[in-house]
Amino acid sequence: MAAVADEDSLRRALAQKQSSIDVQGGAVRQLKSSGAAKLDIEAAVQALNALKLEKASIESQLQAALTGAAGGGSSSASRDAFRQAVVNTLERRLFYIPSFKIYRGVAGLYDYGPPGCSVKSNVLSFWRQHFVLEENMLEVDCPCVTPEVVLKASGHVEKFTDLMVKDEKTGTCYRADHLLKDFCKEKLEKDFSLSAEKAAELKHILAVLDDLSAEQLGAKIKEYGITAPDTKNPLSDPYPFNLMFQTSIGPSGVSPGYMRPETAQGIFVNFRDLYYYNGNKLPFAAAQIGQAFRNEISPRQGLLRVREFTLAEIEHFVDPQDKSHPKFSDVAKLEFLMFPRDDQVSGQCAKKLQLGEAVSRGTVNNETLGYFIGRVYLFLTRLGIDKDRLRFRQHLANEMAHYAADCWDAEIESSYGWIECVGIADRSAYDLRAHSEKSSVALVAQEKFSEPREVEKLVITPIKKELGLAFKGNQKMVTEALEAMEEKVAMEMKADLESKGEVEFHVCTLRKNVTIKKNMVSISKEIKKEHQRVFTPSVIEPSFGIGRIIYCLYEHSFYTRPSKAGDEQLNVFSFPPLVAPIKCTVFPLVQNQKYEEVAKLISKSLTAAGISHKIDITGTSIGKRYARTDELGVPFAITVDSTSSVTVRERDSKDQVRVDVEKVASVVREVTDGLSSWADVLKMYPLHSSETAED
Amino acid sequence: MAAVADEDSLRRALAQKQSSIDVQGGAVRQLKSSGAAKLDIEAAVQALNALKLEKASIESQLQAALTGAAGGGSSSASRDAFRQAVVNTLERRLFYIPSFKIYRGVAGLYDYGPPGCSVKSNVLSFWRQHFVLEENMLEVDCPCVTPEVVLKASGHVEKFTDLMVKDEKTGTCYRADHLLKDFCKEKLEKDFSLSAEKAAELKHILAVLDDLSAEQLGAKIKEYGITAPDTKNPLSDPYPFNLMFQTSIGPSGVSPGYMRPETAQGIFVNFRDLYYYNGNKLPFAAAQIGQAFRNEISPRQGLLRVREFTLAEIEHFVDPQDKSHPKFSDVAKLEFLMFPRDDQVSGQCAKKLQLGEAVSRGTVNNETLGYFIGRVYLFLTRLGIDKDRLRFRQHLANEMAHYAADCWDAEIESSYGWIECVGIADRSAYDLRAHSEKSSVALVAQEKFSEPREVEKLVITPIKKELGLAFKGNQKMVTEALEAMEEKVAMEMKADLESKGEVEFHVCTLRKNVTIKKNMVSISKEIKKEHQRVFTPSVIEPSFGIGRIIYCLYEHSFYTRPSKAGDEQLNVFSFPPLVAPIKCTVFPLVQNQKYEEVAKLISKSLTAAGISHKIDITGTSIGKRYARTDELGVPFAITVDSTSSVTVRERDSKDQVRVDVEKVASVVREVTDGLSSWADVLKMYPLHSSETAED
Repeated sequence: MAAVADEDSLRRALAQKQSSIDVQGGAVRQLKSSGAAKLDIEAAVQALNALKLEKASIESQLQAALTGAAGGGSSSASRDAFRQAVVNTLERRLFYIPSFKIYRGVAGLYDYGPPGCSVKSNVLSFWRQHFVLEENMLEVDCPCVTPEVVLKASGHVEKFTDLMVKDEKTGTCYRADHLLKDFCKEKLEKDFSLSAEKAAELKHILAVLDDLSAEQLGAKIKEYGITAPDTKNPLSDPYPFNLMFQTSIGPSGVSPGYMRPETAQGIFVNFRDLYYYNGNKLPFAAAQIGQAFRNEISPRQGLLRVREFTLAEIEHFVDPQDKSHPKFSDVAKLEFLMFPRDDQVSGQCAKKLQLGEAVSRGTVNNETLGYFIGRVYLFLTRLGIDKDRLRFRQHLANEMAHYAADCWDAEIESSYGWIECVGIADRSAYDLRAHSEKSSVALVAQEKFSEPREVEKLVITPIKKELGLAFKGNQKMVTEALEAMEEKVAMEMKADLESKGEVEFHVCTLRKNVTIKKNMVSISKEIKKEHQRVFTPSVIEPSFGIGRIIYCLYEHSFYTRPSKAGDEQLNVFSFPPLVAPIKCTVFPLVQNQKYEEVAKLISKSLTAAGISHKIDITGTSIGKRYARTDELGVPFAITVDSTSSVTVRERDSKDQVRVDVEKVASVVREVTDGLSSWADVLKMYPLHSSETAED
Repeated sequence: MAAVADEDSLRRALAQKQSSIDVQGGAVRQLKSSGAAKLDIEAAVQALNALKLEKASIESQLQAALTGAAGGGSSSASRDAFRQAVVNTLERRLFYIPSFKIYRGVAGLYDYGPPGCSVKSNVLSFWRQHFVLEENMLEVDCPCVTPEVVLKASGHVEKFTDLMVKDEKTGTCYRADHLLKDFCKEKLEKDFSLSAEKAAELKHILAVLDDLSAEQLGAKIKEYGITAPDTKNPLSDPYPFNLMFQTSIGPSGVSPGYMRPETAQGIFVNFRDLYYYNGNKLPFAAAQIGQAFRNEISPRQGLLRVREFTLAEIEHFVDPQDKSHPKFSDVAKLEFLMFPRDDQVSGQCAKKLQLGEAVSRGTVNNETLGYFIGRVYLFLTRLGIDKDRLRFRQHLANEMAHYAADCWDAEIESSYGWIECVGIADRSAYDLRAHSEKSSVALVAQEKFSEPREVEKLVITPIKKELGLAFKGNQKMVTEALEAMEEKVAMEMKADLESKGEVEFHVCTLRKNVTIKKNMVSISKEIKKEHQRVFTPSVIEPSFGIGRIIYCLYEHSFYTRPSKAGDEQLNVFSFPPLVAPIKCTVFPLVQNQKYEEVAKLISKSLTAAGISHKIDITGTSIGKRYARTDELGVPFAITVDSTSSVTVRERDSKDQVRVDVEKVASVVREVTDGLSSWADVLKMYPLHSSETAED
């Protein structure tokens, strides 16, 4: 918060200085026009120049304050340069490819090229292992094409929109909030003449941007005179654009459908079957990995905001009265960066908390939600996400849907700032209720009591004869309104009827009050025996944006180091073996038939051990071949320099050990499977001098 | 063919018998009306009845002949009953679920439920292992949303259509060929009054159905008086309906897009980058697994014809001058059912051929195509497809695209007949050429010559001055036409000019002939040195319909056996461990805390060994628990009946062995990973009497 206070006082100082300059400038003009003495004029001009110098000094202080506040230390220029280095390497080595490139591409669509595809497949395998298998989840796989009725029930047809404005002359579309955001940021960063009050106003807009209505956004765009960025043409008023790709199912053209915007709905609509499959027991979780689609208005942020992406979602169904988790103790001791709602509001930073304490203090709403936060932390850090650049941020009250009990995002810091990569939400019973209502199929669970329980139940009995006499044709609506009374209202009516004999009662379907008399209704509480409890389960939903996680992983894994000759910087991805696209390369040191045969033999045994690898028998220097594979993040390289034993090199330390040809596949398997570490290997096998080999 | 000959002669006999009946019936009526003697009338009626009996006998022979011909022995009724048993089990155990079931579903869309999802994931993992890893393929992952330009180039926008007819009153749509097919089949199977000629005509229609134009289909529908199946209303003329789901990319509405109908195009458009990634070397293969979409007019055949499905496709790029394969010898000795074009035309059956011979005799066009046929055979049979119900059928000339060099389908026999599950096509250079042309990006490979080669090249040099004098404003078009001449045309012109001094030449852009004189053009052949050859690679494409393979696998794996009490039939899926949705179950024999603890211990070690499993601690009888898991195709069950050792039961033999608690996870791992067989286990561990346990 220090930087913001500075900024505020600097803007005020700047405004004061500007008004002093204006006054002094006026004085100089006055002296000149009145033909004052040369010496007086010179003195006044000197004073003016001194003021201008002071203003320039304040401006550069403000500039520094702004940069510091935005970049958390590193400047925006250096972050852009870092990102460019990562993205260049990724694109050159085909980790990803802009889709349909030979046709000049489509914004927001990317292909995973060969190494990217391997990384993705490794991340998804580990996800399945870590969540589906270890937690015995029920995995399902539903189509992307979804009929309208499902997405009407979920609310997507009505509400899955962004506000859009159009260039009134060219028809080009923009996201209204992006234009307003860009305007405010640009003003704040570059306009030093901004008053402290105006600056505060723009900052307030940035803070509440997501909450602005179409009218409010439109009003601000008009007020600030914002125009189309490319043409400076005037803009239309903002209006909602639905982000789902629409299509039509079947040939008749009368069955609208959409490409699903998330995979979760496929699970909700199957709740009844899955609950049965699980032996009618709660809790249980269902999971799904699949493509989702969002027809973004104007995609930006490269691989982070795309029109088609892979989601991995879990829907964990629990009894709303018991959100404890039997395995919570497995994660309770974990400590990591958390950013609770209150700390955000009071302007503090994320800080390390122990998960168990966060749950027991109520910072995290319940154990199950806490358990998944812990599991997500373990998942991300095992992939190679830097734990110091990972935080769990709680949603502010205005960010959460009205039905949500609590919601935390796993945010990963990248060159674009903190990016939401996993959302972990307790959505209460909202989704199941919505589909129950629309489909008329009960999506509920039962708790059978071992002994029947006595429950006090409200019983409202309208006396039809009296009601009929009193209300004739309106009898049905009055009766229904009486039966629909909530407990509190009914008990008040009972008391009033007993004390006064009659009471005014509003029947909303009639849009008027009627008079209810004592003989028209009987209200009582009765004790009933119940054998089971029927309820709509709550759902806790961890939802993973796989592409975003992978992109952040690329940034966290990337570093450069000088070549041996020191004449260039070499790129390295320090992927852990778990995610590395290829686990190992095999190089004959020189082109030589004997070495090639050994290399092929080793390749065969690596294939048998299930280790993805590549042989490189080109005559390129060994140093260059190492550099090439470092850039793909390959953790180990086997170099064949004899027919009996070979060297194994570890990517980051560049250490090499000598291993027998027969043993090398199993050694590599041990370290890539995580059964032993490189340190263990170093203890077991003789170190090989790398001086000659590396270049 | 015997059955068909029978059918033909039976239909003729039936027609003769009918005309005899007609004649005799006439005679009876004549006798009656002419008041003939009672005895004469009775004799004539007796003769008529005898003829009718003979006709009935021929009808039942025909019925038998038709059933035999259609079912290859098993009747259509028994095939339907078998399918119903499989499908009931699959649906009850959630192998699949009709999508959006609570909203009454959408035809042609299915979810994979938990066990189905595991089977699918196992099949895809094995596909990746068997093809991508073992063959070092470059895997890519492209979006489903595809801009129109790509699918225009591939021909899908114009040609990916089915012919549709509409019920003229209700607007309901049908596939025109399906209606004609149903009509012909129904007539042939049920109408015994059909003449042999008419029967032959209908059979011919069934054979050429795929080749009929819209006009021909429409004419036949009119001729046969075919109406809408549900309403009997008249039908519209057939017209093409594009099977792609259409959508719009971005908010402007001016960028049409489609959901891809196959994954292959994503690979073709990336050819240049992938070729570079492979070190500018051929051959190499790229692979992709992903969703594809076809907006079927009216889906039928359950899980076999759906609107969204998973494809796994390989594009293997080769030099068209060298389609040999270095690993062909690995598969050359394989023998399996093949059905070459000639055998189909001459009415023979598929027969066992050795792959090596089929290639060397030219039955299969080239080694690379043959190699993939062999690899597909290994892939399918290792999954559990019955090798006797798997055949490779070569496309007939009229089935293949004009550019294809050869094409074989892996067809699997199911209750629906022989189903195309994998297509293996040599598509020559068609796809790369099509995208090269539309995108103006060269999608070619180079072969660098070690020594420059001398090549004879045609050189056509128009003499502009003379052409200008002769043709003035038309000079440019004449010049271009001359330069575009093919070698044969040019050499003929050269000869004519030398002998006659001038020649008539058709310029198509002018739509007329012009006279070319000797001084207007010089034509010669020159020897040039070339350092490399530039060419468009051929592509060999194995394309796998994953859902179809899985469905056929379900049918091939399903069997029933009597329960121990003999009072019911129990269902079993005999999946190999490789594809089984769960590898192993853990059952405490009776509900007991000690046994449950042991079960949990074993579960932990199974998880550590990466073996998917399930604990069932319900008090249900052990026999019922076995039956439940047999129905899911779980190959092994561990029953905890002591705290030191447990029994392991194999699903199909029901054999049980006794194994120490500490060892059981590794024993199960060995057999599920295929490192040892159940027979090995039987040798190592003592057999346990299953008599008491099974029920």
